[in-house]
Amino acid sequence: MARIGIIGSEGAMGHALAQVIAATGHELSGGIDRGGCAEKLADASEVLVDFSAPAALCTNLHAAIGAGIPIVVGTTGLEEKHHRAIDEAARVVPVLQTGNTSLGVTLLAHLVREAAARLGPEWDIEILEMHHRRKVDAPSGTALLLGEAAAKGRGIDLADKSERGRDGHTGARKEGAIGFASLRGGTVAGEHSVILAGEDERITLSHSAENRSIFARGAVRAAEWLVGKPAGRYTMDEVLGL
Amino acid sequence: MARIGIIGSEGAMGHALAQVIAATGHELSGGIDRGGCAEKLADASEVLVDFSAPAALCTNLHAAIGAGIPIVVGTTGLEEKHHRAIDEAARVVPVLQTGNTSLGVTLLAHLVREAAARLGPEWDIEILEMHHRRKVDAPSGTALLLGEAAAKGRGIDLADKSERGRDGHTGARKEGAIGFASLRGGTVAGEHSVILAGEDERITLSHSAENRSIFARGAVRAAEWLVGKPAGRYTMDEVLGL
Amino acid sequence: MARIGIIGSEGAMGHALAQVIAATGHELSGGIDRGGCAEKLADASEVLVDFSAPAALCTNLHAAIGAGIPIVVGTTGLEEKHHRAIDEAARVVPVLQTGNTSLGVTLLAHLVREAAARLGPEWDIEILEMHHRRKVDAPSGTALLLGEAAAKGRGIDLADKSERGRDGHTGARKEGAIGFASLRGGTVAGEHSVILAGEDERITLSHSAENRSIFARGAVRAAEWLVGKPAGRYTMDEVLGL
Amino acid sequence: MARIGIIGSEGAMGHALAQVIAATGHELSGGIDRGGCAEKLADASEVLVDFSAPAALCTNLHAAIGAGIPIVVGTTGLEEKHHRAIDEAARVVPVLQTGNTSLGVTLLAHLVREAAARLGPEWDIEILEMHHRRKVDAPSGTALLLGEAAAKGRGIDLADKSERGRDGHTGARKEGAIGFASLRGGTVAGEHSVILAGEDERITLSHSAENRSIFARGAVRAAEWLVGKPAGRYTMDEVLGL
Repeated sequence: MARIGIIGSEGAMGHALAQVIAATGHELSGGIDRGGCAEKLADASEVLVDFSAPAALCTNLHAAIGAGIPIVVGTTGLEEKHHRAIDEAARVVPVLQTGNTSLGVTLLAHLVREAAARLGPEWDIEILEMHHRRKVDAPSGTALLLGEAAAKGRGIDLADKSERGRDGHTGARKEGAIGFASLRGGTVAGEHSVILAGEDERITLSHSAENRSIFARGAVRAAEWLVGKPAGRYTMDEVLGL
Repeated sequence: MARIGIIGSEGAMGHALAQVIAATGHELSGGIDRGGCAEKLADASEVLVDFSAPAALCTNLHAAIGAGIPIVVGTTGLEEKHHRAIDEAARVVPVLQTGNTSLGVTLLAHLVREAAARLGPEWDIEILEMHHRRKVDAPSGTALLLGEAAAKGRGIDLADKSERGRDGHTGARKEGAIGFASLRGGTVAGEHSVILAGEDERITLSHSAENRSIFARGAVRAAEWLVGKPAGRYTMDEVLGL
Repeated sequence: MARIGIIGSEGAMGHALAQVIAATGHELSGGIDRGGCAEKLADASEVLVDFSAPAALCTNLHAAIGAGIPIVVGTTGLEEKHHRAIDEAARVVPVLQTGNTSLGVTLLAHLVREAAARLGPEWDIEILEMHHRRKVDAPSGTALLLGEAAAKGRGIDLADKSERGRDGHTGARKEGAIGFASLRGGTVAGEHSVILAGEDERITLSHSAENRSIFARGAVRAAEWLVGKPAGRYTMDEVLGL
Repeated sequence: MARIGIIGSEGAMGHALAQVIAATGHELSGGIDRGGCAEKLADASEVLVDFSAPAALCTNLHAAIGAGIPIVVGTTGLEEKHHRAIDEAARVVPVLQTGNTSLGVTLLAHLVREAAARLGPEWDIEILEMHHRRKVDAPSGTALLLGEAAAKGRGIDLADKSERGRDGHTGARKEGAIGFASLRGGTVAGEHSVILAGEDERITLSHSAENRSIFARGAVRAAEWLVGKPAGRYTMDEVLGL
């Protein structure tokens, strides 16, 4: 069991993290939000989980380095310079950065890559997602992550092969394309399907989230896994042994 | 059992019709294609099924009138003038015209209209379809037909409320919108789902076609139903007693 | 907006009801549980919602009669004598009793009945449900309710036609049977699908619950609908105008 | 392109094989059925595909050995003695024996094994299948094959952990169980889903067959892959490079 400190404790993820830490028998060493002292939190913790903002990343990494403890970075919207900062910190302490902390999605992406690698390009790949009515962008970040996994499996560049927003006279499907479609409605937490459609048969690989607690659960799992690891940059795949 | 004559006997639907007529114990009175004599076929038949071309419609309706027998019109691409010709013919003989002869799709459209009418506008409506990789337009005609059914149930105009081809920064879903999404791949004969997504619950109404024989089967069912009916213009809904 | 009193306020449904009443702008006039005084609650309320226990039903109905207000009865496990008591109370005040207060399930059952009535017996009916791992019986009550709706649509007796627990050498499917299958796993709140499988096509009518708040929401909707109605016994169908 | 000989050429699979061989540009060297001479066929072929009967297996293997060519064995109902005969033949020529020649199912089984190995036993595994109304046993052979893959991934014995035919008071789901459920109806060629249900999330891995030609296509793919391989016993997994 680990003493876990939350950075971004007042956000939705912060609250979810506190619940999961309590439910799984870990210890919550504390939480900070805008303006809180990351160094103090780090000193009281065995591992940090950061779901705050890109602007705070540098401070948070240094707090981890100062205390000599690992840090899980789940903050989104990172740019090139943030990734360079993570790489530098990872020379000193263990850092796991990811855009999606769900174990289920992490495994699904792995299976999609495997399937795309094994089946020839005569199997068409389509990615479908559904989210609640308030979501403002399409396709979802997770849909794109799954598309990247499929493209990697197939050895192609996703940007060259995406087919998005089909409408009107589209012409026949392009060979080797990876299609995306987005549904919006109700309060759906998040559903993703990757369809591989061949001659007279189809394989469908899907993930369905009942609510957003799965991201907190995966982040806590990543945090406990990270404790005691050597310095380095890690991914969610490694948490699952993939 | 009816003596059924096929107009457009050399097309894919013509062949499928001949098989279904044989399989269901009806009698095939004959078939014609481009240039064949509709009048002679009509004289040998109790009912005609027309899956030919708009240009032949006028001749075919007159053949039915001349023989005093009903006609099922499944030809697509009809314009206003064709519908006027059908209305006129329907004063003399029974005519059933439809863009989709599948019994399952006909029933589904009815259920969609009913569901949309009963559930308030706080239930978001999404329509999803998947077809084979060679299909050149999106959404499918059947998806639009289902969208029309939903709009009718809700008392709105589909053209005002369609949300198609979502991609990029779309903003939140518009209240009362009817969304469409299209998947393409493999050899899928045709799948359609209408999703009504409310607060914490979802209703999904789907149809899946294993192959295109269902259109021939529905057309033959319509033909046998039409025999003996009084002159008038009929729809697939009436064949199902809807 | 109505003043709503909750009977069974300490149970899971009681808590969910209080949340929905607050969220929808209604007024919570109070709540009682084992031993609380229903008469006093009734005097302070415009309508009662009862999710307590069969043993308390008689007292609760009399409290509604005493105050001259309607009551929604969602208590399960009712026997013949309870239904008689409800019939008697319904001569004096409006009473709505139901085994499932979800609007979505209510509508789905209506659509299933309609579909089963329109499609001939050559369309095989299968009912599939999935629930969380702690559920101890199969099929679910809602699956049976949907089976009853299908049987009613088809004019048959469900008890004669059920095919449950298929395993081993079952022989071919019996003509006209209604099949049931149950999946169990994880934390699934409740999913139900009714499949009508015909020659080369399938219609699937599904409901998916994200959590159990939908039952509270439907009960509150029923309560507000019941206010001002004449004495009589009502059903969820009528709330939806079915 | 290979010269392929069919053993069992008059059966449904035999006809499907002949079509696929023609469609994929291979050469059909001939076909035999009950009583035909396998040795002569082998001499005219580069590879044999056997979908006949267990009783003919010994003769067929010897014909392959005599001609020094590979053989694909898709015959079902094999017993221990047949497997021993295959092992012996595989010392001399390449032999690929399998109970399911579909590439999609082969890949799905691989993904299921991988998923079951990576996710802990707190993820419940359920296997659902649907087939046409004439199927006389449940669960399907492919469902059991997928169950075996899940059990292997998890390092357990399927026979100890199967939960089949749920009906009535079942009690809560057993920890580590693998559940099976079977739907029957219409003309469904074959659909299989493996559901891994965890805390608040689910992964579903599915295969859908539009018709039975996929088995012929996979067998032909296996045959062309087998040409030129060294003597030995092979599996479908190897054809996909798994």
